[in-house]
Amino acid sequence: MELSLAPVGRIIKSAGAERMSSDAKKYLASLLEEYAGKVASEAVKLCEYAGRETVSAEDIKLAAKRV
Amino acid sequence: MELSLAPVGRIIKSAGAERMSSDAKKYLASLLEEYAGKVASEAVKLCEYAGRETVSAEDIKLAAKRV
Repeated sequence: MELSLAPVGRIIKSAGAERMSSDAKKYLASLLEEYAGKVASEAVKLCEYAGRETVSAEDIKLAAKRV
Repeated sequence: MELSLAPVGRIIKSAGAERMSSDAKKYLASLLEEYAGKVASEAVKLCEYAGRETVSAEDIKLAAKRV
């Protein structure tokens, strides 16, 4: 797992949670990581398709529409 | 922004990126944060609906299906 649990916990807290289980943070972090991996893979393909080596914000943006 | 850019960059790298712009990391982090906020808000509502104070992994799981 790449993402840390503390910032994920702060996001849940900001959403109005009084308390949360450790598993809730882990589960949300794993969902985010899965989503990020899918978007990133699509962005890498788009970047290669465009003949570039540096993944750009535009690649991420277009990739997110396709995931 | 709660999420750090370094782990997001590592996820993009793991997806096969040779290089990425700083904006690409920021953009993906902001997408993740937006998604996390939506799921967390829904999870808080479900938790309250169930008469609990502690958001659980099950709340996150069900919330993710509804976002």
